[in-house]
Amino acid sequence: MTVQTPPPSADIAETLLDMGRRARAASRALGKLGAKDRTRGLNAIAAGIRAAAPEILAANADDMAAGRAKGLDAAMLDRLALDEARVEGIAKGVEAVAALPDPIGRELARWTVPSGLDIARVAVPLGVIGIIYESRPNVTADAGALCLRSGNAAILRCGSESARSSRALVAAMRLALGAEGLPEDAIQLVPTQDREAVGHLLSGLEGQVDVIVPRGGRSLVERVQMDARVPVIGHLEGLCHVYVDGAADPDKAVAITVNAKMRRTGICGAAETLLVDAAIAESLLPELTEALEAAGCELRGDALARAIVPAMVAAREEDWSTEYLAPILAVAVVDGLDGAIAHIARWSSGHTDAIITEDQAAADRFFADVDSAILLHNASTQFADGGEFGMGAEIGIATGRIHARGPVGAEQLTTYKYLVRGTGQVRP
Amino acid sequence: MTVQTPPPSADIAETLLDMGRRARAASRALGKLGAKDRTRGLNAIAAGIRAAAPEILAANADDMAAGRAKGLDAAMLDRLALDEARVEGIAKGVEAVAALPDPIGRELARWTVPSGLDIARVAVPLGVIGIIYESRPNVTADAGALCLRSGNAAILRCGSESARSSRALVAAMRLALGAEGLPEDAIQLVPTQDREAVGHLLSGLEGQVDVIVPRGGRSLVERVQMDARVPVIGHLEGLCHVYVDGAADPDKAVAITVNAKMRRTGICGAAETLLVDAAIAESLLPELTEALEAAGCELRGDALARAIVPAMVAAREEDWSTEYLAPILAVAVVDGLDGAIAHIARWSSGHTDAIITEDQAAADRFFADVDSAILLHNASTQFADGGEFGMGAEIGIATGRIHARGPVGAEQLTTYKYLVRGTGQVRP
Repeated sequence: MTVQTPPPSADIAETLLDMGRRARAASRALGKLGAKDRTRGLNAIAAGIRAAAPEILAANADDMAAGRAKGLDAAMLDRLALDEARVEGIAKGVEAVAALPDPIGRELARWTVPSGLDIARVAVPLGVIGIIYESRPNVTADAGALCLRSGNAAILRCGSESARSSRALVAAMRLALGAEGLPEDAIQLVPTQDREAVGHLLSGLEGQVDVIVPRGGRSLVERVQMDARVPVIGHLEGLCHVYVDGAADPDKAVAITVNAKMRRTGICGAAETLLVDAAIAESLLPELTEALEAAGCELRGDALARAIVPAMVAAREEDWSTEYLAPILAVAVVDGLDGAIAHIARWSSGHTDAIITEDQAAADRFFADVDSAILLHNASTQFADGGEFGMGAEIGIATGRIHARGPVGAEQLTTYKYLVRGTGQVRP
Repeated sequence: MTVQTPPPSADIAETLLDMGRRARAASRALGKLGAKDRTRGLNAIAAGIRAAAPEILAANADDMAAGRAKGLDAAMLDRLALDEARVEGIAKGVEAVAALPDPIGRELARWTVPSGLDIARVAVPLGVIGIIYESRPNVTADAGALCLRSGNAAILRCGSESARSSRALVAAMRLALGAEGLPEDAIQLVPTQDREAVGHLLSGLEGQVDVIVPRGGRSLVERVQMDARVPVIGHLEGLCHVYVDGAADPDKAVAITVNAKMRRTGICGAAETLLVDAAIAESLLPELTEALEAAGCELRGDALARAIVPAMVAAREEDWSTEYLAPILAVAVVDGLDGAIAHIARWSSGHTDAIITEDQAAADRFFADVDSAILLHNASTQFADGGEFGMGAEIGIATGRIHARGPVGAEQLTTYKYLVRGTGQVRP
């Protein structure tokens, strides 16, 4: 049976545990496949999604109707909506993952030690990955595909808004795997939106889940970090800063700031705070303000910024820690590079921060002293993206400190083991 | 003040939080130091430990007296005991860490993408590391030194048996750092053995702790994994297997098995289970048994093993999951390579497992299908050690799947950030 159906509510624990066991079995089977088998499976999945477009669109129409009835706002409905072009985009995304280099089995390092042992560090899958995410149905396909590319079994837990669309997508993906003789349990979708299911998943399902990847808003990520009994590769919010240094090229400063904030305001790499060096604030802030407002951005300034541009709304304390994901930008005038570094150390979520300057020494110090996953010099924060990094698809941008930071692509969904080749060595 | 004194018990939460804040400040200061400063600090620590030998030995004598009064067994007392030679060994260990390549700032990868952005992945410290460990006082110096080498601030929580020795060691280490003008709060010791303190540390101290490294027995590691609200680099037990394949060279099989079990029985890389291929069990098991028993090892066999060597004690189910850390070995006769792989998949702790065979195809399949941090072909499991891997000192052998597996040395105590150099790029 390839289509998963919801369990009776009393059986949630048993259902999840069974999913965990099947995921483990699938991950063992995946481990014995070669890169070509995984590529074949991914291409079959892309074809299967195309073939199932009518069912996927019908399911999405039901999600959209339920979303409208529930009063979802226009932005959320847009993220949820699928049409033929978007389904084709999802299939193309899976094909792009199929075209990525396979990360499994790569020799990451190899050396010989004085005892004569030959030691190799070789990439292997993480195992079973639980992915908990919100609304957008394309994440279902992206996450499943990235896990398969990296030899991992995926247990997906989608948001309730996209549950019908995700179920149709996963059914198509599993059908395609099964038809190719590949383990269809490599991609499973939790068949209930009951929150209890998330709790079971976070418990690790008696050791069957190796890693949890939460992808969503702050409350989801915080719940996961609090309750998970297995490792988490966390994706906190993107509270990204653009610092315009005294030695900035004004044209670059304006173009980058407007792009960083306004190209797309709803992504985690969008800038949320602009820091302007006091040394050039008087000359540059009016120009920056004008360009941002012309692009439709609301500005909220600190006292120093409002002294220069009095029309600006006054920023409150919480503006420095708010991920607007909207055309709003907090603006502070800071005391040079040190002031910018101190502001970022206090408020950044460790995601992505940029400096605009022609002073190489200032850029070097910004790179050394700011501790975020991604630092940019003279480029827009909106480049914080696995595709723009040349990593193909990504499952998100990790803001934690261990295992993976920044874009999490197929390579980041691996671990390694040591293969030690001897000739009879015993340890003295 | 460089010597830390215990707090009034009511103030444990505040004391720990203050330690966390001071560790964070020290980690920021460490981040601005260069490799030469860290090396200078490490050499000063080694000298400081030598100079403080009388105080350290006096404190250790008190620990030993308390340990005897508490009824610690001879093996535990031996692990706890220091003398001048052992203190010199601890100092030399710190000098060995000083001689290691500094892992911070290394460019791990660098590439250019079509947008023209130049992307570099650069190693940075994890930040603040909480290390929770048991009895042996040398861990105090090793862990503090490895954290300093990798630019991390350490909050150490030692076992109660070695508390006085550890306090004297940490006092010497902090004094040495302070005298060199380096941040002495880079190495702090929790000044109370109250278990409540561990709870606070595991909570992450309001975001001041980035990673917890537990190093100790199963109950410690399980408590840490259950209660930690921050990432854990876990070191579970070493339930290591030696599989003697039908195509094994009998001399290598005997020498490696005896060494893997008996060289030192109390370390995590010691073998706990011997698996013998049924194809050669009848000819080889008596010889293996004789050699192991001659070395002082007790054997506990399954029914098939006892059919060949009837004098063997009968193994019970729990023998397959017991880390003896003693001269006892569980023995099972398995149905060839597949039987060995199945036994290991069921019982291994994912630490270290070895195959003895002259059949390259069997070794290759063992390497592919067994999923442990370290796999060895024709070599003793006792090589599972950072020093033997050429990594210098280690803080333990990680058995988890994320961030680091196998020996955790200075390089494994780092993470990375991306430095992206642009020329004004905005994202289309």
